[in-house]
Amino acid sequence: MLRLYHVPLCPYSRKIRLALREKNLVAELIEVEPWEQKDEFLALNPASEAPVLVDDDLVICDSQAIADYLEEAFPETTLYGRSLEERNETRRLVAWFDTKFTREVTDPLWREKIVKRWARRGFPRTDGLREAVANIRFHLAYIDWLYQSRRWLAGDQLTMADLVAAAHLSVLDYMGDINWEHAGAARDWYAKMKSRPSMRPILLERVRMLTPPAHYDDPDF
Amino acid sequence: MLRLYHVPLCPYSRKIRLALREKNLVAELIEVEPWEQKDEFLALNPASEAPVLVDDDLVICDSQAIADYLEEAFPETTLYGRSLEERNETRRLVAWFDTKFTREVTDPLWREKIVKRWARRGFPRTDGLREAVANIRFHLAYIDWLYQSRRWLAGDQLTMADLVAAAHLSVLDYMGDINWEHAGAARDWYAKMKSRPSMRPILLERVRMLTPPAHYDDPDF
Repeated sequence: MLRLYHVPLCPYSRKIRLALREKNLVAELIEVEPWEQKDEFLALNPASEAPVLVDDDLVICDSQAIADYLEEAFPETTLYGRSLEERNETRRLVAWFDTKFTREVTDPLWREKIVKRWARRGFPRTDGLREAVANIRFHLAYIDWLYQSRRWLAGDQLTMADLVAAAHLSVLDYMGDINWEHAGAARDWYAKMKSRPSMRPILLERVRMLTPPAHYDDPDF
Repeated sequence: MLRLYHVPLCPYSRKIRLALREKNLVAELIEVEPWEQKDEFLALNPASEAPVLVDDDLVICDSQAIADYLEEAFPETTLYGRSLEERNETRRLVAWFDTKFTREVTDPLWREKIVKRWARRGFPRTDGLREAVANIRFHLAYIDWLYQSRRWLAGDQLTMADLVAAAHLSVLDYMGDINWEHAGAARDWYAKMKSRPSMRPILLERVRMLTPPAHYDDPDF
């Protein structure tokens, strides 16, 4: 029995929710507020961060560790590819979004504007906001370039690279920070992602006090 | 033949240099300045970040992807552990240092003060420096707590968790930002790490215009 402790509108939680569905795994979803630092949650994860996956007695903390665990424990549907080359390319792009995109976009926008408000921890830094929004264009151009010659971001198969990229972009799109007008093939790729059944529950989710733009949950945007 | 493109005094490059040595692998080291965005390096890694590992025709970008590759391609000496439990614990702690510690300490200190100077990209943000230095104490306390009941950070064996933690701490120690006075068992653990042959070349390395404190390369500090 799998249980996932998650935060809605969190790219790291979303990536695991997508991975679970793409692997045809069912998990009970439990919403948490890690910034409350409650004892029960700290006992699960001393870092007090979501997501956390519990598989019977096993507690797995950190989204990357969870993705690796799912790949090893449920190898029937691979999300990394079978050959070392495919796995390298998937992991390169997972890191692209989970570290480079995070540093240049997700941290200055989502973490500053959303997480700080949830945690009631001061005002967002505004000096990096404009630069972060501008950085999105560069990353969309990279997706555009990749998708022009590939069926999915890392190659012929859907991989964690697509799920991680869609997880980050879906959060920023909810926030209204993405301009799809000149996104080229990146828009086609994201439309394909939005059509996947794994994306539906995520796109239909709403958080309090924040309404997404009209195109947000429309696959034909 | 392995070639590692690396930056001295970079925690992500250091972690791979340590992993190579602990796995008894020899790699040619090539120093790069990724912020120069030179075409040859961009051709290897479009993210223009170090480290990059080249194994014959295979190019592996991103330190986590390289660590995973080394584990899969050279499994004789494992740095993650054999059981799923050990691997989960190692990956939890690798993420602790590569994401949580990075966000709370390495990014506001090393990236602001050192990388910005190397890249000649503006003045460092100073508003986060004091908080980042204070955060180090919290992380040392966590290492102290782990090491009181374990032989190494993730359990009975040396793992990537030790290498990643030592890579980050060695860079901050070079910068003079670590106060070891009240570090308890964390200091004992780091003394043990400093005594490993894999750490020697790293501790003897010097970068221009920056002199480490006297205790920096002394295992008996």
